[in-house]
Amino acid sequence: MRATSDTTDQVPEEADFRLDPDGLTPARRRAALATLKQYFATQKANFLGYQVNEAIAYRAELAEFLDYNTNNIGDPFVLSTFTLHSKWVEQAVLDYYARLWNAQPRRVVDQQLDPESYWGYVLTMGSTEGNVYGLWNARDYLGGKALMVEPEPSDCDDGRRQRNRVTWVRATTPPDNENAYTPVAFYSQDTHYSVAKAVRVLDIPTFYEVGTKRYPHANPLSAGEPWPAEVPSLPSGAIDIDKLEKLVEFFASVGHPILLVLNYGTTFKGAYDDVGAIAERLRPVFRRYGLDRRRVKYGSRNGKDLVDERAGYWFHIDAALGGTYMPFVEKAIRTGALPAEAEEDRPDFDFRIPETSSIVASGHKFPGAPWPCGIYMTKVKYEMQPPPLPAYVGSPDTTFGGSRNAFSPIVWWDYLARHPEATQIELAVRAEHVARYAVRKLSELAARRQEDLWVERTPLALSVRFKQPNEEIVFKYSLSTITLDTAEARHLAHLYVMTHVTEELIDRLVADLESPDAFPEQPAEPAGPIGDWGPVEDVERLAMVPIIGRGFR
Amino acid sequence: MRATSDTTDQVPEEADFRLDPDGLTPARRRAALATLKQYFATQKANFLGYQVNEAIAYRAELAEFLDYNTNNIGDPFVLSTFTLHSKWVEQAVLDYYARLWNAQPRRVVDQQLDPESYWGYVLTMGSTEGNVYGLWNARDYLGGKALMVEPEPSDCDDGRRQRNRVTWVRATTPPDNENAYTPVAFYSQDTHYSVAKAVRVLDIPTFYEVGTKRYPHANPLSAGEPWPAEVPSLPSGAIDIDKLEKLVEFFASVGHPILLVLNYGTTFKGAYDDVGAIAERLRPVFRRYGLDRRRVKYGSRNGKDLVDERAGYWFHIDAALGGTYMPFVEKAIRTGALPAEAEEDRPDFDFRIPETSSIVASGHKFPGAPWPCGIYMTKVKYEMQPPPLPAYVGSPDTTFGGSRNAFSPIVWWDYLARHPEATQIELAVRAEHVARYAVRKLSELAARRQEDLWVERTPLALSVRFKQPNEEIVFKYSLSTITLDTAEARHLAHLYVMTHVTEELIDRLVADLESPDAFPEQPAEPAGPIGDWGPVEDVERLAMVPIIGRGFR
Repeated sequence: MRATSDTTDQVPEEADFRLDPDGLTPARRRAALATLKQYFATQKANFLGYQVNEAIAYRAELAEFLDYNTNNIGDPFVLSTFTLHSKWVEQAVLDYYARLWNAQPRRVVDQQLDPESYWGYVLTMGSTEGNVYGLWNARDYLGGKALMVEPEPSDCDDGRRQRNRVTWVRATTPPDNENAYTPVAFYSQDTHYSVAKAVRVLDIPTFYEVGTKRYPHANPLSAGEPWPAEVPSLPSGAIDIDKLEKLVEFFASVGHPILLVLNYGTTFKGAYDDVGAIAERLRPVFRRYGLDRRRVKYGSRNGKDLVDERAGYWFHIDAALGGTYMPFVEKAIRTGALPAEAEEDRPDFDFRIPETSSIVASGHKFPGAPWPCGIYMTKVKYEMQPPPLPAYVGSPDTTFGGSRNAFSPIVWWDYLARHPEATQIELAVRAEHVARYAVRKLSELAARRQEDLWVERTPLALSVRFKQPNEEIVFKYSLSTITLDTAEARHLAHLYVMTHVTEELIDRLVADLESPDAFPEQPAEPAGPIGDWGPVEDVERLAMVPIIGRGFR
Repeated sequence: MRATSDTTDQVPEEADFRLDPDGLTPARRRAALATLKQYFATQKANFLGYQVNEAIAYRAELAEFLDYNTNNIGDPFVLSTFTLHSKWVEQAVLDYYARLWNAQPRRVVDQQLDPESYWGYVLTMGSTEGNVYGLWNARDYLGGKALMVEPEPSDCDDGRRQRNRVTWVRATTPPDNENAYTPVAFYSQDTHYSVAKAVRVLDIPTFYEVGTKRYPHANPLSAGEPWPAEVPSLPSGAIDIDKLEKLVEFFASVGHPILLVLNYGTTFKGAYDDVGAIAERLRPVFRRYGLDRRRVKYGSRNGKDLVDERAGYWFHIDAALGGTYMPFVEKAIRTGALPAEAEEDRPDFDFRIPETSSIVASGHKFPGAPWPCGIYMTKVKYEMQPPPLPAYVGSPDTTFGGSRNAFSPIVWWDYLARHPEATQIELAVRAEHVARYAVRKLSELAARRQEDLWVERTPLALSVRFKQPNEEIVFKYSLSTITLDTAEARHLAHLYVMTHVTEELIDRLVADLESPDAFPEQPAEPAGPIGDWGPVEDVERLAMVPIIGRGFR
């Protein structure tokens, strides 16, 4: 154990936990766990920097579930023979958010699930899993891929009975448009780094990559200039709709389907992209270039074309933070608990917008959970994974992971059961007040110190940004820090006003920030890898990798 | 709640958990949780079908961690300012398995991490995450991709200071081999369905796809015949090394790098691919075609080539089950606790084999955990994610998820601390005995019933296969069932002898299997989607999707 510099509390270190092949004595094992628990208790009391709710206490009623090895294998709506599952609970959580996000309930019409019904699942990871999963589905939907049942070739002549198999196929590229099944991805420069990672994992070209390689002189934002690596944002952190429209229109005009990743609560600024306004702006563009509805042909059977009708766009909404919170801000405005003017800063994002294809939200952020978790939600018609074929396995493999955490839905369900809508509205109102309080207190501090502390907040965001303080304060309050990639490399911190954050905790932070050495002089180095690397030649560039200015999820 | 047909116990249903917007009263909430707990207790007592250990009891000492919202964001070896993490614990677990799997410890030489040192992390999902992550790294390693630091183009002329960025680049294809950076994937027909999924997510062509498309008449296993969809297995479930060698040699001879996914404990049969023998067999093949070492050129700087030396192959070992168990079987044989003859059935799989690039193992399987978890392990030289650049974020984004479950390493650590090596050897010996007992008892049952119950076990496997019994028995014992894709569609079940499985539990199952209606007549339908679908024409096939005969993870 190591003493921290400014407190008598102990910080664990690796040596406390080192494992011999012979295991540990009960005394050493308990001592190590006690160190960790004590450290967690200390850090929890001052936790202020990240968008996770620490006001959780699941020990009292849910601890018993630690004695069961449970697993929500496969599809949430098909019970498997792995009977230690919580899929009933998972379904209740999904139904709750489907209603909150104005999705269609799941209903059967003519013995088939209505294609407009929602489908989704509780993620085992946080929203990163949902972003990868959503973009995978988007890539294959826009790429004209499909699962198809066809006879086993070796058995076609077996008169006794017909054996079939499932094959993964791709639609034929139409002769008049070689780009028809090559989706191009768009996301703003305030987007979480996991989206850039998902695009790399899935090998989805971004407009930057395609533009640079194939249309180097056609940048519609600035003729002749290099393409921007990402869609520019406004100072608030929201995507610049005018610029987005120009970029999308260019790629639609040369025949590409459009994969749009929008944010509802960006990681650093907590900004909300206006999904409704974007859909309205792009709708005529899609219509103009035939992307509103496309006939996708895979092959033919008995002389008849095998055809699917699909959209030529996909709107994936990363609502990791906002998805579980902003619906209650909306209700608070409607009931008068928040002022009507706030409505101007609250764009819609959910399935009320017909273009919305998939939404991701985190469970550990606003609701809070002992570990990362989340929800992925889409419509049945957008499901690209094995369709509900007869159950040869206990439950079809429709999710990313197969094996899935069955405890997360229980935690989330318990939160929703204990937090009626009225309570969640109250939490939203209180968060708004505490965030305003933090801005006021930090601004007053800046005035007292006669120093620009760069205090900023995007309207309705839970995040408040300010100048990065010294390391001890960063550690004590678990502040998230970031270096903005501006000309003069600003080193910032943010705090996040989650349910556990009180005015008293803000006061404590501000008291520590009064200290003369609270804000050391910032290093002048640029935001990026340091050193004289020299220009590179003869290189095939695929993508820029944002490693700065994006914060952690 | 619904009564099950053969017991008085209650099975939960969705209505028990339905959530109103107003939440639930404490009484209704507690009643629902009580139903679930009671159901779990009943099912746990008879749990027999899946490869997960139910002998877990983490409530007593770890319940307190349910009150903290923790997160092992980013790299396990770089502490982040999200201070509520357990990375010290995670490092201890990783060190434990690095030693067990004969990996090089992490050590710094000349201020740099030794490239042969291990790197890894505790997965938030089960092994599926590790398979996707490993195959992603393999694809990009073999595909000649790299991260490169270069000057920001717009700032090259800024005399004051140099701003840089990180770019994702691809090596130039050499003029004499257009296939040099197109890896081809190989895996056996007993491979878990998550590998086929990973390959689809990552768009990695399999030998079936490339062979069918580009070399339709060159199948080296059977000249002129269609290519097999996967590498054939032996009846034991292990990969057929002779056939694998022929397939690999063909693709090496036409210049492709080789991505090999091997199993150490297949899902259904529990079979172990002989990784050591495969490496020995393929070593001369790799040497013959220059795949043992390749010069990978990305570009040039100041007139000097930017070059990497890389292998032209990647061995990914899916040791989901075997990785945490077989090392103790090895020790048991060495100490005489298991007979020396068993050594013939125990192939090596770990970093002792120089070709091993990455290993994945599950934590919820042999050790047991309340939810799926696992380990991914590789060598520093194979890390494809952001290199340890100066910390502009609290911790570099080197894992799949970013946000990661910090409770799983604590559970796993606690298991290792409480289970000295001697105990784990005992558990392995006991499992072998109980598995043999199950085979004997089921065989005796078959003799009594005068019925072939298809009782089989691959040597040293924890899985015992037999004829699928009726639905009540499948449900009561949570048996995993499967339809084998053979000519006569065998419907099988398996049990898995995990630590909680006793001879007494086997006896109870066998007693239920004595019942006259225990084995209903099996449906005669073929293994695959039913119906007369008719042949499909004009279709571009990408891959076969195994939906039967692969079992769930």
